[in-house]
Amino acid sequence: MTRAELVRHIFQRRSYLCVGLDTDPAKIPAHLRSHPDAIFEFNRQIIDATLPYCVSYKINTAFYEALGVKGWEIMARTADYIPGSHFKIADAKRGDIGNTSAQYARAFFESMNFDAVTVAPYMGADSIRPFLEFTNKWTILLGLTSNAGAADFEMLKLAGGDHVYEQVIRKASGWGSPEQLMFVIGATKAEEFSNIRKLAPDHFYLVPGVGAQGGDLAEISNRCMTSDCGLLVNASRAVIYASGGEDFAGQAASVAAGYQKDMDIYLPANSSSQLA
Amino acid sequence: MTRAELVRHIFQRRSYLCVGLDTDPAKIPAHLRSHPDAIFEFNRQIIDATLPYCVSYKINTAFYEALGVKGWEIMARTADYIPGSHFKIADAKRGDIGNTSAQYARAFFESMNFDAVTVAPYMGADSIRPFLEFTNKWTILLGLTSNAGAADFEMLKLAGGDHVYEQVIRKASGWGSPEQLMFVIGATKAEEFSNIRKLAPDHFYLVPGVGAQGGDLAEISNRCMTSDCGLLVNASRAVIYASGGEDFAGQAASVAAGYQKDMDIYLPANSSSQLA
Repeated sequence: MTRAELVRHIFQRRSYLCVGLDTDPAKIPAHLRSHPDAIFEFNRQIIDATLPYCVSYKINTAFYEALGVKGWEIMARTADYIPGSHFKIADAKRGDIGNTSAQYARAFFESMNFDAVTVAPYMGADSIRPFLEFTNKWTILLGLTSNAGAADFEMLKLAGGDHVYEQVIRKASGWGSPEQLMFVIGATKAEEFSNIRKLAPDHFYLVPGVGAQGGDLAEISNRCMTSDCGLLVNASRAVIYASGGEDFAGQAASVAAGYQKDMDIYLPANSSSQLA
Repeated sequence: MTRAELVRHIFQRRSYLCVGLDTDPAKIPAHLRSHPDAIFEFNRQIIDATLPYCVSYKINTAFYEALGVKGWEIMARTADYIPGSHFKIADAKRGDIGNTSAQYARAFFESMNFDAVTVAPYMGADSIRPFLEFTNKWTILLGLTSNAGAADFEMLKLAGGDHVYEQVIRKASGWGSPEQLMFVIGATKAEEFSNIRKLAPDHFYLVPGVGAQGGDLAEISNRCMTSDCGLLVNASRAVIYASGGEDFAGQAASVAAGYQKDMDIYLPANSSSQLA
């Protein structure tokens, strides 16, 4: 999916919501657990119910890998099921030396048809470039994450004055254009958002941490939105586990619709690219 | 596998070689390509031939993920095939928020029976702890990697004086004991090795980058070996692609035997734990 297409979907649907499919067999509704294809069936119903309210789905690869070969198969099938109208993210946090990153890129962009994959920056440019070589595919690089552990290394102060995460965003935004590179910025770090937007004014940010992790949608949107939106805000547990009952998909849709209603308020009437 | 068992294998076999199974369908010998189970068959023959000369195998998950569901199945089967006498590493470079890292740990330690998994440090303590909670399982954290991109972030100087990678090793060596935590230190960084050994004097280091990437086994061993060895040195391409002919397994064994012969010279006669 191109950036223009993504922006068009956001302004048409008046939503920049990404629904995170962190599907855990222990947390799906009781009535589904005896289903022969329970995880996929859960995902299918969540996707069907939430499509109108979101522009993206994010599959957390860990939850599928934990189920072994069968889990990988369900992940591939879920990715196939998500329609082309929605931006498909593999939240995989991969990254290795060049020849190995190239294999990861093939896994998510060729073997499966994801639009984007999340990548960890630690190993530097040559670990990230193989992902950036794919046309109309996206690399989403960890910037500042939503967890407490962000303080351990990401927030360390460098001799030059930047925090480590600032240097990551500053350097990497020269490696990939806003048409192919996004950054992960945790919603729990809202006080840093205005500063972070200055580091990469035109790149999209994928923002996890709204919902179960406590981030504030209004504050993020006010501090960090661009004229083209420039944000994908992810909610996982708050949406998909909104109810543990037979009405789980309907309840997930209600929560997603609630986010969409708020997002409609924060979004400009038109994108700058529509105006141009 | 416990540390004592690993050390015993090293001194009995007089080897601290890890063979990296970065198996690429495009690089396996021509005569195997029509085999209905070519990748597994290649791995099986490499393992059978190199067992006497190494103490560990490292499966590079990317190469299997690139093949889709079938690849994940071959990875699981290869891990099963490696005997309990050899330390099984999933070179996966995972790491995410706590509840997600816990799922990755389940994938590699429960769904598959790896002894160890490589983990990226960027997201800090709570992204690493879930791996450390498993008994007799190992977390191998990226310290200083072998690629050029190590200069981008790992080698940045912090305000406190350390390089980023030094701070990673210093902090993380307090999170996991030498019975459960190792660090990845690239062989191409041999000039840093004496200093790095001071940062974590008792932890094992997994050292990739010998062979195809050009690292020097003698220099690494001289600068960084402990009385219990404290090193696993990995070679991947140099061993498994030693020959593209029908003799590939025999040639792989020859290269592995060559490393073992050198390692026998660098290893002390007995480990300090045997003497104790």
